[in-house]
Amino acid sequence: MRSAYFDHIAATPLHPSVLEAMLPYLGGENFGNPQSLHSAGQAALQAVEEARERVADLINASPSEIYFTSSGSESNNFAIKGLAGAMPKNKNHIVISAMEHQSVLHSAESLEKRGFEVTRVPIDQYGIVDPEAVRKAITPSTGLVSIIMASGEVGTVQPIKNIAGICHEQDVLFFTDAVDAVGNIPVNVLDLSVDALSLSGIQFYGPKGSGALFVKKGKRIVPFIDGGIQENGRRAGTENVPAIVGLGKAAALAQTEMSIRSDKAIPLRDKLIRESPLRVENVLVTGHPKKRLPHHASFCIEFVEGEAMLLNLDMKGISSSSGSACTSRALKASHVLLAMGVDHALAQGSLVFSIIEDNTEEDVEYLLDVFPPIIERLRQMSPLYPAHKEK
Amino acid sequence: MRSAYFDHIAATPLHPSVLEAMLPYLGGENFGNPQSLHSAGQAALQAVEEARERVADLINASPSEIYFTSSGSESNNFAIKGLAGAMPKNKNHIVISAMEHQSVLHSAESLEKRGFEVTRVPIDQYGIVDPEAVRKAITPSTGLVSIIMASGEVGTVQPIKNIAGICHEQDVLFFTDAVDAVGNIPVNVLDLSVDALSLSGIQFYGPKGSGALFVKKGKRIVPFIDGGIQENGRRAGTENVPAIVGLGKAAALAQTEMSIRSDKAIPLRDKLIRESPLRVENVLVTGHPKKRLPHHASFCIEFVEGEAMLLNLDMKGISSSSGSACTSRALKASHVLLAMGVDHALAQGSLVFSIIEDNTEEDVEYLLDVFPPIIERLRQMSPLYPAHKEK
Repeated sequence: MRSAYFDHIAATPLHPSVLEAMLPYLGGENFGNPQSLHSAGQAALQAVEEARERVADLINASPSEIYFTSSGSESNNFAIKGLAGAMPKNKNHIVISAMEHQSVLHSAESLEKRGFEVTRVPIDQYGIVDPEAVRKAITPSTGLVSIIMASGEVGTVQPIKNIAGICHEQDVLFFTDAVDAVGNIPVNVLDLSVDALSLSGIQFYGPKGSGALFVKKGKRIVPFIDGGIQENGRRAGTENVPAIVGLGKAAALAQTEMSIRSDKAIPLRDKLIRESPLRVENVLVTGHPKKRLPHHASFCIEFVEGEAMLLNLDMKGISSSSGSACTSRALKASHVLLAMGVDHALAQGSLVFSIIEDNTEEDVEYLLDVFPPIIERLRQMSPLYPAHKEK
Repeated sequence: MRSAYFDHIAATPLHPSVLEAMLPYLGGENFGNPQSLHSAGQAALQAVEEARERVADLINASPSEIYFTSSGSESNNFAIKGLAGAMPKNKNHIVISAMEHQSVLHSAESLEKRGFEVTRVPIDQYGIVDPEAVRKAITPSTGLVSIIMASGEVGTVQPIKNIAGICHEQDVLFFTDAVDAVGNIPVNVLDLSVDALSLSGIQFYGPKGSGALFVKKGKRIVPFIDGGIQENGRRAGTENVPAIVGLGKAAALAQTEMSIRSDKAIPLRDKLIRESPLRVENVLVTGHPKKRLPHHASFCIEFVEGEAMLLNLDMKGISSSSGSACTSRALKASHVLLAMGVDHALAQGSLVFSIIEDNTEEDVEYLLDVFPPIIERLRQMSPLYPAHKEK
């Protein structure tokens, strides 16, 4: 059976040259602990520091501003809890958007339980945060603003530079969860003027278990994982050397191949966005029509449920998602779609096709061929489908 | 040049069959996100659940009691902060020992800053915690006791079952940091009657980036990494599938090979402990003479500094440590040795030889041959050395 993987946002495959870079640090001689003073440790440490340079280069940061973590979720917890924990005594207010990832949302909720106040800024029908709404949400007690750079659920890319600028006018720290952005669109921390930024290797052909947090030099952050002196005393735990080396290699690849990957993905994305509503009735394209990730096409399909579509597509060899993998099994309507004003029933029919670099135009043709009859069949079984009701 | 790796406690090499088990989840087809509902995700999920069974088996737990993490340090943070966070409102007191790992010590300090009270129980000259001292430290407001099972710095193994029993008599939760123990000595959570226990793959030939926390069924714990619904909603972040699979394989290997490894390591350990003081003057064996890890020999060498010894041994191809790798670069005297009553100057000369399964009697002979002249030369350069002063 033909198969096509359209679930970039859940996890990209490991790039063969990333695996090749990792292997010497998995088996063989290079198994040392980077904190060991002997040669085996020194070799591991050197590999970690080279990877740090590569990750820093990708986002135009300094290596000393990069802290390795185990995932995007850990990076987001570290940022929200660590930056809030370092806020001056007279600040206890945080501003986030209604479309943050669960790891930011729930970190903010944990802080609320500890006495912090959190304001959630709304988004428009395209999932865009209005920078002026952020300005209005900031009070004299605001210490931190956190706005996601790009949504894995609807693909929308935010006006981060504008929002960061407003935060700095008010002398408020600005963090962006850039997990779905870094490696896929150009991200320059100096140009954007962000104080902290999270990223994850699985979004750009790097290994699972790899993530990083950028914290601008001079900005205070409290450690999240307490313990040893790794990562300059800010993130304890023996460094996951192979994952870090793989992240570094993936970052270097992304830097050279990003525009090639985008140039290939955008026509496929646009074909999916253009043709899906032509082939199936009652399909809503979600997210912003232009300000969106190059590899991301998302829809709400009326009168069908996301899970049923995924499983039926899977039977045809097509891997897709209905939004964030982090909540897929919860089978709840996406908080992002609801915040965009999509009604609850329609939000249940969420579907995301996210393109990896191996995808071809034939994959897209195949998808567009098998997709309509699946939807038609599912609708015929749905008591809510008007055609069904009319009978 | 001959070389010999005597730094088990910093990191064990990856077992070849562990790497073999991991490879299908690194490159190739099995790169799916376990939370994805399509086949690629399901295959990854199944691998994660098989690994969970293997890890549970190793410590006689149920799979549903195992939460995967990225390291022993993360597991310890999760345990201390998560169990404290779930303590009833009328409890705010925690008891730890003076020999806990930094990830427990500093987690407890973080809790102190949030208003919790922490009591540190002393240890004796062998590094043993007196169970009666734990009993005395418990007050009506105590909600949690945390005692390390085995010390990577001095090798001492604690009377965990007795201490856990005392905690349960007083209706207090008991957690043990078993990172240096699990995979190396038999650990049975039912027999020991512990409520929570941490472990790490790098202590038994598993991959970096792999750790787990056991939490007894029915015991409440607050998530540490907030976010998605992974690990039954208790630990967010895309599962590091290859590391988890590797941890599972390492656990299965440890179960079948632990006694073979110990039978091989113990004579080497005992030879090191017996002969080192015969070949070099003014050598103190640290830790308990009998209640110690099978692969662990530790010393304090008078009139020399740990770092100088490590670097000189490294030049002879021997990898060793002066205690915890997590603080090696801090070059401070070990808090464990100081708590055991070792004086500050002597504690600076700490040296640990920890045996891996590849080590042979020839490795030990080589070590015992090159070791004395190194110490002699370093002492001749030390102004504190009496022989030097007499001249």
